Amino acid sequence: MELDTIYQPIQEDLQKVEESLVSVADVDIPVLKKLLDYIIKTSGKRVRPALTLFSGKFYDYDLGSLIRVATAMELLHTATLVHDDVVDNSLQRRGKATVNRLWGDTSAVLVGDYLLGKCAELTAETENIEVMKLFSNTAMVISSGELRQKGLSFDGKQNRDDYYRWIAAKTASLFSAAAEAGAILANSPEEAIQALRDYGYNLGMAFQVVDDVLDFTGNEVELGKLPGSDLSQGVLTLPTIIFLERYPNDDTVKKILESEIAEHIELARGKICQSTVIQDCVDIARNFSLQACQALEILPDKFPRSHLVDLAHYVVRRKG
Amino acid sequence: MELDTIYQPIQEDLQKVEESLVSVADVDIPVLKKLLDYIIKTSGKRVRPALTLFSGKFYDYDLGSLIRVATAMELLHTATLVHDDVVDNSLQRRGKATVNRLWGDTSAVLVGDYLLGKCAELTAETENIEVMKLFSNTAMVISSGELRQKGLSFDGKQNRDDYYRWIAAKTASLFSAAAEAGAILANSPEEAIQALRDYGYNLGMAFQVVDDVLDFTGNEVELGKLPGSDLSQGVLTLPTIIFLERYPNDDTVKKILESEIAEHIELARGKICQSTVIQDCVDIARNFSLQACQALEILPDKFPRSHLVDLAHYVVRRKG
Repeated sequence: MELDTIYQPIQEDLQKVEESLVSVADVDIPVLKKLLDYIIKTSGKRVRPALTLFSGKFYDYDLGSLIRVATAMELLHTATLVHDDVVDNSLQRRGKATVNRLWGDTSAVLVGDYLLGKCAELTAETENIEVMKLFSNTAMVISSGELRQKGLSFDGKQNRDDYYRWIAAKTASLFSAAAEAGAILANSPEEAIQALRDYGYNLGMAFQVVDDVLDFTGNEVELGKLPGSDLSQGVLTLPTIIFLERYPNDDTVKKILESEIAEHIELARGKICQSTVIQDCVDIARNFSLQACQALEILPDKFPRSHLVDLAHYVVRRKG
Repeated sequence: MELDTIYQPIQEDLQKVEESLVSVADVDIPVLKKLLDYIIKTSGKRVRPALTLFSGKFYDYDLGSLIRVATAMELLHTATLVHDDVVDNSLQRRGKATVNRLWGDTSAVLVGDYLLGKCAELTAETENIEVMKLFSNTAMVISSGELRQKGLSFDGKQNRDDYYRWIAAKTASLFSAAAEAGAILANSPEEAIQALRDYGYNLGMAFQVVDDVLDFTGNEVELGKLPGSDLSQGVLTLPTIIFLERYPNDDTVKKILESEIAEHIELARGKICQSTVIQDCVDIARNFSLQACQALEILPDKFPRSHLVDLAHYVVRRKG
């Protein structure tokens, strides 16, 4: 099932989120407008806004608040990407040049800060204290998780727990917050909030494992960037970690961590793709996806539930 | 009058702010703890927390909320400094090495983001929507003002209006928000909120003009950094702008903007310090300070008022 089909019942609301995102660039400082226009047009899959919208539709909701928070969740994601690209000195994202490449680190740092302020504003406009606390906590979890991870680059001793802790902070926390915020805004009962929080967390874990698999198996067109980019930056993701577990005497990866030589990266990527490691990773992602679906079982049998199940299957199957 | 004397009636509360700042570094991620410890110990004059505390004491206040917001205002200031030092590639601040110099841009960007999230959290804990909106709006004003300004570096056509607009965004907005937030939290009547907002704005304008004067007239020990740093980065502040207005045929500054040669910077600094430009700038700062004091006149004659007047005089007189 394609994403469009899954999103079908919230298509109109997603369109409103899109309009709300476009209106973020409606500012009277030309340099800021130019940056925001570029960033917002570099569109993603809008999974986070979709999570807020679906999660907000099990109980009573105010559509205006849902749209604001859905927009804020997408912008928080965007702000962290813009800052990550500065931090990683990345040149390409989603098939387009990064902000830091086109306009320099200065502009990228400052426009990221602006976006964080904008998220806080949109969240505050809901006048819901719990959602505001959730937003600020998520921003802290993402940045502190990223800080911890940076200290581990080129460290071959990282294990699966390090990896899970890292992706929980950088991806699952925001998926979880996007779902939980929708549930809170709909005045859902506590167990429904908990269920959607768990769903979001597990969906985020599945999503990130698949992202990290695609960095090995994907091609440049599907990925919007060169494959193997994590390994070339000394970042150990699940496929590499499992490969190191399974083949402790193979020193291809160790050579990369010591010397970062381009042909070693292609060699390691080849070895990993030809081993059973990729299938193991897909199984792990599928398991997270399954846990996400199980979390939904206690929720009322309303339309968002089956669509969230479809979304959980989609994130494991996707190619880009 | 020294700052300690001015702060005397809020000394105990400022101590609580200090403890609250220290507790921000109480996190279980070692690399984050190390960075936060360093940043928080690099202490400033705590003018922004003092503004929130004094402004919050004209009417009924909850001390816990005032302390939280006073802490948040200092952290928002700190976060913007940490990111500014990345953006400007600064090596020294308040007499100490900058975060980017000691731990690199990556750590500085991420810890700045963490601090922005922490400010949002502290602000949300007050459960006051107006204060939350004020915080997010201020974060947006500061980053967008900085973005606009970066586009003007090395542009000799900047005039006083450009400069005032810039310092209003980067400094006065936060002084104004710190004062306004205190007033809001104390359930002050609308005209008192407006008065304290105006006081904060004008105090901030005076403070920044003096900062920019000290960058010419100060010495390294008082400043905690090399004097002339603005000009050496192509940043035109009020002394340079007035000098360019007054001596349109003197091409010392123009040469710096074209070629950034160190001896030209010392020459220009000498010329500006020996002209009447510095006195003109001090007069302008004094005028802002006077407007700050006038804004206070409608407030009840309680202890914070005279201390805020003293603070307005202090910021013009200070040497570092």
